[in-house]
Amino acid sequence: MRASSASAIDLRPVGRVESPLTDPAQAPRQGDEGAPDAWLVVDAGYAEAAHDLAVGDELVVLTWLDRARRDVQVTQPRGDPFAPLTGVFATRSPDRPNPIGLHEVRVLAVDGLRIQVSGLEAVDGTPVVDIKPRLGPVGER
Amino acid sequence: MRASSASAIDLRPVGRVESPLTDPAQAPRQGDEGAPDAWLVVDAGYAEAAHDLAVGDELVVLTWLDRARRDVQVTQPRGDPFAPLTGVFATRSPDRPNPIGLHEVRVLAVDGLRIQVSGLEAVDGTPVVDIKPRLGPVGER
Repeated sequence: MRASSASAIDLRPVGRVESPLTDPAQAPRQGDEGAPDAWLVVDAGYAEAAHDLAVGDELVVLTWLDRARRDVQVTQPRGDPFAPLTGVFATRSPDRPNPIGLHEVRVLAVDGLRIQVSGLEAVDGTPVVDIKPRLGPVGER
Repeated sequence: MRASSASAIDLRPVGRVESPLTDPAQAPRQGDEGAPDAWLVVDAGYAEAAHDLAVGDELVVLTWLDRARRDVQVTQPRGDPFAPLTGVFATRSPDRPNPIGLHEVRVLAVDGLRIQVSGLEAVDGTPVVDIKPRLGPVGER
């Protein structure tokens, strides 16, 4: 059996978020809770990978929530001080061992390596680590 | 402006997949295309984070597809040799700069740190890097 869970992995940002949101405490908890439109700025070294992104695409953007805490294993969901402490794998708290953000967005504009997307709750400067199309029904992939 | 996209990030596996799938070439492309049930084996150091996972939970499991190629930026979607070469950010190819797998699953059983889940297309030994609940409508989170 592989003991692959022991070794660290080198995750490399492929771009970053440009957003009017700058304070994590002010950011909406999810993109559909009033988050602003934002830009994904892809690094020039990943131009080929981003080449086929187009207006109207429904994407899942993966970010590295670099302002989150990695040493938190239990939390009160949605910051509710009356909620029971809950293991973070059962919550969407940004504070978790690997604070990867998942954001479902739609492409509003493409300007070279700058991709404008709808409702993104990540703050300005957040590293982008992957971009994927959302999956439709089998057969449309 | 932060130049955060320049620096590497240390992603730490929190567990691994135990699955009858061992050959990536034989694995289904998506979990709903005939993938078998599998176990997530959480490392003991993350027991608190996993504490509230329960049978019936609908989860998104994030894995590190450690058998994928990171130097691929364009691919033929779904391995179709007649498809046009497409930038990987517009595909779900496992070969991509940061090969993070997203898997939507349901919890079938919980046995301590072993979590059995439905239809997972990752092969045996694949590192698990995060586990999140799938989001329901706003207000049910």
